[in-house]
Amino acid sequence: MRLSQLGEFGLIEAIARTTPKGSGVRIGIGDDAAWVSHPRQSSLITSDLLIEGIHFDLRWTTMFDLGYKTLAVNLSDIAAMGGISAYLMLSLGIPSHFDSKKIAEFYRGIHSLAARSGVTLIGGDTNIAPLFLACACVIGHPSKHPLTRSGAKTGDDIYVTGTLGDAALALQILQSKSKRAHGKTIGQLMQRHHRPTARLTAGSILAEKRVASAMIDISDGLIQDLGHICKASGVGAEISADDIPLSSAYRAVAGKDDLRYALSGGEDYELLFCAPHSHRDDIEKLQRRAKVSITRIGRCVASRAGISVIAASGKPMALDAPGHDHFKKSANNARRRRSA
Amino acid sequence: MRLSQLGEFGLIEAIARTTPKGSGVRIGIGDDAAWVSHPRQSSLITSDLLIEGIHFDLRWTTMFDLGYKTLAVNLSDIAAMGGISAYLMLSLGIPSHFDSKKIAEFYRGIHSLAARSGVTLIGGDTNIAPLFLACACVIGHPSKHPLTRSGAKTGDDIYVTGTLGDAALALQILQSKSKRAHGKTIGQLMQRHHRPTARLTAGSILAEKRVASAMIDISDGLIQDLGHICKASGVGAEISADDIPLSSAYRAVAGKDDLRYALSGGEDYELLFCAPHSHRDDIEKLQRRAKVSITRIGRCVASRAGISVIAASGKPMALDAPGHDHFKKSANNARRRRSA
Repeated sequence: MRLSQLGEFGLIEAIARTTPKGSGVRIGIGDDAAWVSHPRQSSLITSDLLIEGIHFDLRWTTMFDLGYKTLAVNLSDIAAMGGISAYLMLSLGIPSHFDSKKIAEFYRGIHSLAARSGVTLIGGDTNIAPLFLACACVIGHPSKHPLTRSGAKTGDDIYVTGTLGDAALALQILQSKSKRAHGKTIGQLMQRHHRPTARLTAGSILAEKRVASAMIDISDGLIQDLGHICKASGVGAEISADDIPLSSAYRAVAGKDDLRYALSGGEDYELLFCAPHSHRDDIEKLQRRAKVSITRIGRCVASRAGISVIAASGKPMALDAPGHDHFKKSANNARRRRSA
Repeated sequence: MRLSQLGEFGLIEAIARTTPKGSGVRIGIGDDAAWVSHPRQSSLITSDLLIEGIHFDLRWTTMFDLGYKTLAVNLSDIAAMGGISAYLMLSLGIPSHFDSKKIAEFYRGIHSLAARSGVTLIGGDTNIAPLFLACACVIGHPSKHPLTRSGAKTGDDIYVTGTLGDAALALQILQSKSKRAHGKTIGQLMQRHHRPTARLTAGSILAEKRVASAMIDISDGLIQDLGHICKASGVGAEISADDIPLSSAYRAVAGKDDLRYALSGGEDYELLFCAPHSHRDDIEKLQRRAKVSITRIGRCVASRAGISVIAASGKPMALDAPGHDHFKKSANNARRRRSA
């Protein structure tokens, strides 16, 4: 049914009907505000806005995947503080010609990830708009000691979860329309692009065990997000190019020597964190419980040294396009303009 | 400075610099998520999305007023639950050609209202977009007994705060470009349109004193929002046309007999609530403390009677366009397409 027939309140009723009742929700969808309980007297709150033509392209992104990703990118922010995600407020701008089936598909994507992450949709706003856009706000429960960007010390090791560059490489393939003959390999990259995995368990354990000194999620590219930790902590960083974890799909498509996507592609939604040398064993053991690989890629150095990536030759690599900036015009940004 | 020169992180730093540190904010702007304290172990949460060309028109709306209004419409939702507003998450979509001064002006509007309502900006997201859009999420502290839409009983009185129809009448004047020779009168209507007053004190007292049985804020028009209370509470409503509070400016411009804007114009951001007959004296007294007039406009009747507005003649008025629906196409909606 077209939304112009269903109407705003018909749509809200349909959303409410298909939304599971979650724990801690005292008033959910359908009143002026939602009312929710917290296990502690504090909350973590994050918000991300995804806009058609800027963050995603509906020519190659399904509404299900877009719903999934809208939630995932917010969960990743809560993971980066070491928190547990709990509630989702979701505001949508929807073109009037959209069929309600498309919107139902978007919410199926949301609910698919929400169910497995213990998150409940509690409300939001629905509006007509000239293009599709989704603004999510996720409220989470903090660990006793939320992990910020500012605790890294000179000498700390630097780690990342998972592998880097897969999502950005997938986007490059989508944009160049060169699907080439990689078959299953491409599928693995596309999965990483369309359905990023927020590292909720790893983030939560790292905060709870107090092994990490600073943490961020990689949304704008390793070098740029490392820059945020360095700036907030007052340190520099030396990364070993050979140690950057690349998936077998990445190696097969881009080759192990093309690190552009891994260094500054963005949308990895992996965790980047620092930890003192004395915690190496703990972090090694933590991988199994967190069900994700954790790789040591470098160390924090004095602030004045800045950020460098050391190639196998021992020489620092040139870093001219650190990562994504939504406003600045650069070759790197143009490449990433359409991202989901 | 153009945003394309300032860059996303330059903008975020500028926003952080001009944002006052609020109480209860443990981590504000500049990390992956905000971390805030709550006086109780529960929160109220609401979200509203405003989109250029749909909700506002920058030909007649200043960026300061737009910032003010973006926050006000969210505060109104918290007021309608009887809560106290505390934290604001704000995500923006900004055209790349915008000058950073425009954005600073928008934030000045936000901070102007935030300061007087005890609200702190704690974070958000900034993005490039083909049009300007603002998505706010406000987190508030509930009263012990949040007021929902569902507690009204047959026989309850129906009240509204302030006056109705001013904002919608102002919009009609802006859209028709007929500023006519009303001078100061028009100014009063415009003020109501551009800087709505969320009835935070009234809402909070009504919940705290437990005098109201159900409450909502009037954003989509009296009849439509009354319909939400009636549906949620399982009652009907009989409104006396003569009792609907109209401002002197409204009477001067539209005349006291043209109730279209007051009944279904929307964007009043006044409170509409029900209360048992026995609370009339309490509500009468409450006006002074809440610093807003409160007018009894009708009573709740049996559900099967639906909603009627009784004219001075004693006959029910025809109600063909109840209020705003973002997706349904109607004369009423077309009129309200551009609203701020």
